[in-house]
This record gives sequence, C-alpha cells and structure tokens, in this order.
Amino acid sequence: MTRQSSLSKIADTDANTGAAGAVVLLSGGIDSYTTAALAHEKGFRCYGLTVMYGQRHSCEIDAARRVAASLKVVEHKIIELDLRSLGGSALTSDEPVPKMSPSYSGTKPVIPPTYVPARNTILLSLALAWAEVLGVFDIFIGANAVDYSGYPDCRAEFIGSFEGLANVATKAAVEGKGRFRIHAPVLYMTKGDIIKQGVKIGLDYSLTHSCYDPDEQGRPCGQCDSCLIRLKGFDEAHLHDPVEYL
Amino acid sequence: MTRQSSLSKIADTDANTGAAGAVVLLSGGIDSYTTAALAHEKGFRCYGLTVMYGQRHSCEIDAARRVAASLKVVEHKIIELDLRSLGGSALTSDEPVPKMSPSYSGTKPVIPPTYVPARNTILLSLALAWAEVLGVFDIFIGANAVDYSGYPDCRAEFIGSFEGLANVATKAAVEGKGRFRIHAPVLYMTKGDIIKQGVKIGLDYSLTHSCYDPDEQGRPCGQCDSCLIRLKGFDEAHLHDPVEYL
Repeated sequence: MTRQSSLSKIADTDANTGAAGAVVLLSGGIDSYTTAALAHEKGFRCYGLTVMYGQRHSCEIDAARRVAASLKVVEHKIIELDLRSLGGSALTSDEPVPKMSPSYSGTKPVIPPTYVPARNTILLSLALAWAEVLGVFDIFIGANAVDYSGYPDCRAEFIGSFEGLANVATKAAVEGKGRFRIHAPVLYMTKGDIIKQGVKIGLDYSLTHSCYDPDEQGRPCGQCDSCLIRLKGFDEAHLHDPVEYL
Repeated sequence: MTRQSSLSKIADTDANTGAAGAVVLLSGGIDSYTTAALAHEKGFRCYGLTVMYGQRHSCEIDAARRVAASLKVVEHKIIELDLRSLGGSALTSDEPVPKMSPSYSGTKPVIPPTYVPARNTILLSLALAWAEVLGVFDIFIGANAVDYSGYPDCRAEFIGSFEGLANVATKAAVEGKGRFRIHAPVLYMTKGDIIKQGVKIGLDYSLTHSCYDPDEQGRPCGQCDSCLIRLKGFDEAHLHDPVEYL
C-alpha cells in the first residue's frame, strides 16, 4: 500500500505542475516499466507508447496496459504494426523460441535469434513522430546494454546516433523549437539493479510480463532467455519474483 | 510498346544475373517510380515496399501496385501502419488539404501542413528491417530536396544521418556482413528533370498518382500542392501529363 500511494503521488504532482512531457516506450516488461517510472520521478508528464509489432502473445500488450494504468500516464497509445510480414526473428515468426541460447561463442558475443531486425529504430521512429505531434522533446526507451549485449540497437552508440538523426529529421528541431533527447536510463544497469531501484520507488513487478514463450493463460515458461534473465535479476536483487511460473 | 519492352528487358536481365538486391520504397508517385526504375537500371534486383500509413486515399496504394507490377519487382510488400492515430498532418487526419500553400514566408521557407512528422524516418526504418531480413544492403528512397525544400527529411543531411544510424543499429552491419547504403537518386533533380529522365528510360507516368485530394474515383484535383508541382514538372519537361484531371 505504501508503495502504491507513493507512486500515485508522483503522478498527481506531475499533472499539477505542468512539467515537460515525454514519450515513453512501454513494452510491458521490467525495463520499460522502470524507465517510465524513472521518467516520472524526474518530473516528466509521460505519454506511453506501445507498438503491437506482431508479438505472438497478447499478454505483452495486457502487461503494457497494466503498467500504463499503474503509472497514470497522461495517455497510452497502442499502435499496430505487422512486422510478422517481414519475418526475420523468432519473436515475429513461427521459428521456435530458443531456450537457454548461448550469449557467447568462444569470446565473441552471439546475437540470439530473438533479435528483431531494426526493432528499436522502428520503435524510436514512431515515438519521435508522436513526440513531434505532441510538441515534446524527450523520449524514453528501456534499452539495456548489459543483459542484451549482443543486440546492436541496445547500445549507447545507437541511442546517440538516433538522437542525432531526430534533430535533423523533424520540423520541430529544424525550426529550432527544441532539441530532441533520447533517454535510456537503465542502459548500463544490471537487471538486479533495475529491479532493486524499481522496488525502492514502489514498483509492482507482478504487473509486468517478460516471457517469450508463455502458455495460453499467459503464464511464463521460466526457461526462455527472457525468463532466465529476469529470474537471475531477482536473484541478484535478493528479491522474490512476484510472477507465477509454469 | 518500345518503352515497355525496354523496361521488361532490364527486369529480366537482373533476375538472370543474380545482381545485388535492393529495397525500394514505393509510394505510387512520380519520384519513387523513377527512383525504382533507376535502381533497376543500375542493375539492382528490386524489392518494393509500400507503407499504408493511414493515407486517406486507397488510390495511392493502387498506383504503387501498378508501378510495382510494371517494374516487375521481385516482391512487393505492403505494410499497414496507422499513423492517423498519432495525427499531426493534413495527410493523416481530417485537416483540410491546403490548396496552393506558399513555400516561402518572406525569405524563409515554410514547411506546409502536409508534412507528416518523422515520415521518412519511419519509412526508412521499415525498409531497413526488411533489407536486413532479406540480406540486402541497398535502400532506395524517392526523396526530393528541390520541390519539397521545406521538408526536413527530404535533405541530404537526413539521408546521410539515417545511413550512419543503419550501420550501428543492425546485426548485419555490426557483424560486418556489409554496409547499408541509402540511395536517393532524384534528391537534387527538379520535377521536370525527373520526368524527362523517366520518359527517356520508358516509364509510363499514367500509372502514378500524386494528388493529395482526389475525388471518389481517384481523379486528381489539379489544385493541391502535389498536383501543382507535378503539372509544373510536366510543363518544364515540355511533356503532357497522361493523367486525367477533374
């Protein structure tokens, strides 16, 4: 109860002070939930954006809805985009989801088949479009370079490059109305630190969904890469994962 | 007939030689049609990508289909993306389409309300995703800096910035399989020169659609910015526009 009311207070205060707005990408997972909460903490009025990019499981969208409601975002928009028609990833096709795929082959990191081609570029483009429409210049993404070291679009170099692009691509920036900033506050945090930080500010991780391969009721498998990273995070944080596994 | 068969020959030869593939963004207008044809001429095997971004008129998609068929692209993919839900442009909302809006206010160029926030960033992101799935590294876009001097995402600076992003954002580039190149071959051409060039290589512009505000049968209004730029182009090229106006 204490946690919930502490968070509600943050959201209410933001709305009353007329603080700057920010678009926050919300997937329904731990990283984007924590990222959105940190944006709130910094005083931003948050607009949540969820892209249904042909995810195989509607439970991800349900989780994003729960997270958005809990954080009292100003508005939560869900955009459909059928990336399945492009294929190329275990997350957007009928390829089997890998269980415990190796992160390294010898000393070289291996990008797992759950990589979705250009995903964060697409997500940030849509966030940029909405930010420009809203007249806000801050965009938050829950990219993480620690647990997903193989994903090229979860690196600081990518985030910086997109920020540069945003400022030449848009009317708002070119006309000098502001400068877009891409924030990735959990980029260098371990999953354990993200969870510890989130719990400290009152987040309820039972709202989130991480599993790549849940059952029909949406219960996580506990064996895919995403479940394993999540469980390791709770372990590192010395906390119990409130989600029920199969 | 000579024009048509000359073009068919190009497409057939490409398929037989196993030339490099390229993703080409096809809107159904003059610029993207000519761009795709120039990609063909350079020897690329073209994959056409059309994004239905909440355009108000299905005739644009019909034109893209005609153009793709005429150029014999290897594959034509149409992706739906509802940008209407984000709003912010006369092309994706119920705002009236401007007729003869000024391009300059004093000496300063004015970006017209037909600007779609982050449009080319979104289109190129999707093209990049498909290119990575296909294993091709060349992307063609019919951006033009001459007639749309106000659009920030129709400038060389934007194209170059996106090319840089593509090469840090993707597994294929980071793993050294190739370097993405964004081609905008009509970027610095006037509409008149684009049309002259296209007619020279056998293009049939009756297949295309440019109007922002057609009637229910898809006939162009002849008065919106896009019709005016098109008509001026044919005038400059000393050619007759084969499309029938209202």
